Amino acid sequence: METRRIIDITELALRDAHQSLIATRLGIDDMIGACRDLDEAGYWSIECWGGATYDACIRYLNEDPWERLRTFKRLMPNTPLQMLLRGQNLLGYRHYQDEVVERFCQKSAENGIDVFRIFDAVNDFRNIRTSVRAVKNAGGHAQGTISYTISPIHSTGFFVDKARKLQDIGVDSICIKDMAALIKPQAAYDLVSGIKAACGPDIRVHLHVHATTGVTLVSLMKAVEAGVDCVDTAVSSMSLGPGHNPTESFIEMLEGTGYSTKVDMEKVLRVKNHFMNTLERYCQFQSRVTGVDTKIFKSQIPGGMLSNMENQLRQQGAGDRMKEVLEEIPLVRRDTGYVPLVTPTSQIVGTQAVLNVLMGRYSVLTGEFADLMLGYYGAVAGQKNPEVMELARRHAGKEPVTCRPADLLKPEWQKLRSEALALEGCTGTDEDVLTYALFPQVAPRFFVTRHEGPRNLGTDPVTGASETHPAEGHQGAITGPITYAVTLSGRQHKVTVAPYQ
Amino acid sequence: METRRIIDITELALRDAHQSLIATRLGIDDMIGACRDLDEAGYWSIECWGGATYDACIRYLNEDPWERLRTFKRLMPNTPLQMLLRGQNLLGYRHYQDEVVERFCQKSAENGIDVFRIFDAVNDFRNIRTSVRAVKNAGGHAQGTISYTISPIHSTGFFVDKARKLQDIGVDSICIKDMAALIKPQAAYDLVSGIKAACGPDIRVHLHVHATTGVTLVSLMKAVEAGVDCVDTAVSSMSLGPGHNPTESFIEMLEGTGYSTKVDMEKVLRVKNHFMNTLERYCQFQSRVTGVDTKIFKSQIPGGMLSNMENQLRQQGAGDRMKEVLEEIPLVRRDTGYVPLVTPTSQIVGTQAVLNVLMGRYSVLTGEFADLMLGYYGAVAGQKNPEVMELARRHAGKEPVTCRPADLLKPEWQKLRSEALALEGCTGTDEDVLTYALFPQVAPRFFVTRHEGPRNLGTDPVTGASETHPAEGHQGAITGPITYAVTLSGRQHKVTVAPYQ
Repeated sequence: METRRIIDITELALRDAHQSLIATRLGIDDMIGACRDLDEAGYWSIECWGGATYDACIRYLNEDPWERLRTFKRLMPNTPLQMLLRGQNLLGYRHYQDEVVERFCQKSAENGIDVFRIFDAVNDFRNIRTSVRAVKNAGGHAQGTISYTISPIHSTGFFVDKARKLQDIGVDSICIKDMAALIKPQAAYDLVSGIKAACGPDIRVHLHVHATTGVTLVSLMKAVEAGVDCVDTAVSSMSLGPGHNPTESFIEMLEGTGYSTKVDMEKVLRVKNHFMNTLERYCQFQSRVTGVDTKIFKSQIPGGMLSNMENQLRQQGAGDRMKEVLEEIPLVRRDTGYVPLVTPTSQIVGTQAVLNVLMGRYSVLTGEFADLMLGYYGAVAGQKNPEVMELARRHAGKEPVTCRPADLLKPEWQKLRSEALALEGCTGTDEDVLTYALFPQVAPRFFVTRHEGPRNLGTDPVTGASETHPAEGHQGAITGPITYAVTLSGRQHKVTVAPYQ
Repeated sequence: METRRIIDITELALRDAHQSLIATRLGIDDMIGACRDLDEAGYWSIECWGGATYDACIRYLNEDPWERLRTFKRLMPNTPLQMLLRGQNLLGYRHYQDEVVERFCQKSAENGIDVFRIFDAVNDFRNIRTSVRAVKNAGGHAQGTISYTISPIHSTGFFVDKARKLQDIGVDSICIKDMAALIKPQAAYDLVSGIKAACGPDIRVHLHVHATTGVTLVSLMKAVEAGVDCVDTAVSSMSLGPGHNPTESFIEMLEGTGYSTKVDMEKVLRVKNHFMNTLERYCQFQSRVTGVDTKIFKSQIPGGMLSNMENQLRQQGAGDRMKEVLEEIPLVRRDTGYVPLVTPTSQIVGTQAVLNVLMGRYSVLTGEFADLMLGYYGAVAGQKNPEVMELARRHAGKEPVTCRPADLLKPEWQKLRSEALALEGCTGTDEDVLTYALFPQVAPRFFVTRHEGPRNLGTDPVTGASETHPAEGHQGAITGPITYAVTLSGRQHKVTVAPYQ
């Protein structure tokens, strides 16, 4: 065992933690108070932007994501700020033409992002080349990412080969991204050692794991022993379940091993205290997945995807057919050539599985599923089912492609810019054009209401009253607040009630 | 690394899991349905009796603990049943004369216990000699236990020496019992290797850890690598928080390591499903400790002890003085010679710390604290504070002792038997005499009500209605159930309410 080595930590509290635990609803005013301690704690980076946060900002929180980023940069000037970027998809749900990608990376760097973690759902690295180059041109750290999954074709050797390809592209570091907590200790050890052996000891390797299956803190330990440079954790009060391993536990577990971190536990505990009651205030958005779930090893379905599909089925009045859908997903995934299940492939595969169960197998195809089968999301690792490809071709009325999908796109920046500038409330900045480009349905409404300022969706866990608009807490036929003692789960609560209708 | 080795598992769901998570309130009818799968799963043993379960049975559940044990034996004939025994304290809170200890062990073996995990809170093994001998005479497996803690005197060498002493006593296996989740991965590795090196590779070493600090699944991995023979886990739906690591996660994490278990995952998942909604039904008893808490590494205060002290302080109207008490506990513990904090020392040290804060340091001593200082609980490992010993001597009006405490006791079986037989409802069996001997205040009431049968304290998490007595679910001025829509935490619930008084 190496005797002395510092392991770096990326803190996830401000991005993936609340994305995984409370559907990305955390408002900026619930984060500001933690920023100073986060900045002073000694993290390698603080992930705080990208992923679903941009969408959630404009869709639910009436908050300008660019303003959020500038706020973070102002409050955390000393620690690199990190974002998650879906390669050629940016933060949207389609591929963008290269100029849009370049402008987005440039603006993100200008506004405060230092480290760009760039991934592609199907691990087709042609989809991240433009963003990697743009990030480097903007002076940022371009981290190339492997979307981890398990399947008959996804061996250690397969992923090591992917890492070599990332190195060839010229990334500044490599991240193994395990969004469903599938990487077991020995697999983590083998993969990190394998990458270090193949790419040389100087290539930085980061490991991003969720906690859902309960085994991945052990996987982090094994990754440390194998030479990992940096791990992702979240402060304990924003951790576990479908989220991540607790930062404090990671630090403590290294005692006596010869490995240590530069992170100051006192600062981390202050951040923990800051977030202590936060999840409770957002419990209406809270994931139903709690504790651990090892069935994921079999189904390979991430927790967040499960709850999405449950909702889809319930809306169709078919809430009782979940079991069939769970059995259908691995079959659909096999037909796609074993794509990793991560945004957007998790939604595409999940929705198609639901349709297969409700309507008959492949009797209806979504446009997105057809595109995935026909190569419009990029090249997948495995063999696709030729019969399903043929169905997709007929359904979509277009031919399969093997080129880089973005090469099919025409320049679009000027058109997007003209459309954005025509919208009420659009300021005309490139940032606003990008907001429109990413979310053309949501941006127009957001531009109109932006001046009202951010909305905080947290509510008092007992009264249900919101913090920012307390008057809206009570609705219904009872005009004044009437205090009752309600026995719920064996405990008395004081609550305000409305007659049942 | 050893290439192939089977790691045994002891399942805790039926004893320590519910003791840690829902204050030992799990009723027998919530366990029966899991027994067949537990018995067939392939565990080394199933812990299901002893600890606080005996007390909880007669105090809260109107259930005969001996009948519970016989039920378990009938339903789980193939897997060894295990209990936790507090040495000369048995399952009570004082030392018993040897004949009582012998009869208890004999009766426990006769009624179905195969494996006796025997510990002493201060690690004075003179306090477990009688029970180890009695268990072996009764044909049982006598497991000698080291109460793990951290302090300036508790080094790896210290504990290895304790293990050697257990071996000298003639125990059948050695358990490291870490009730506060303090053992970090490297410490676990060093201790297990140390014991194997000192006691020989053939001595069975078991590791019992709680999950509270979040690091101990990693400690189990390191213990496995160091040669541990058996680990303690609890099925995932009865795990984590102040409880234990999930059985399924332990099994899964070994994949590819060369280590494996004999436990059948399908059976475990059936047990998981059985207990899936159980904690919810007992949420009124649920520990407030959830997620992980690494502050325990500093305070060394087990989670269960914390909530006890919070209650004590609140009852004294001093709920705001918890911080002072938390700072006082390490000082009191140092004065005792660094006793491990486990029943009964956790209660003794905790209560004295509360008194010190509320009344002035050592201006009032409890009788139990004085006894601890004067050696009446046995010899402690460290140096005791002579000034506090002198206060204890004056307070208690008795002299310090260094002998085995039970040697001070006169024969008491016949007296206990006469007293028990005089009680209404006592059947005159040795089992009933033992119930009276252990809990002389509670047993008389229990003997009278025993014929009514076990009470189930689980309640419907939404309506609060109990399963066995649904009519008692509603109380107060509203005579009929009135259904309201109550917005609690942003979600509407249908609940039954009573006017606030």
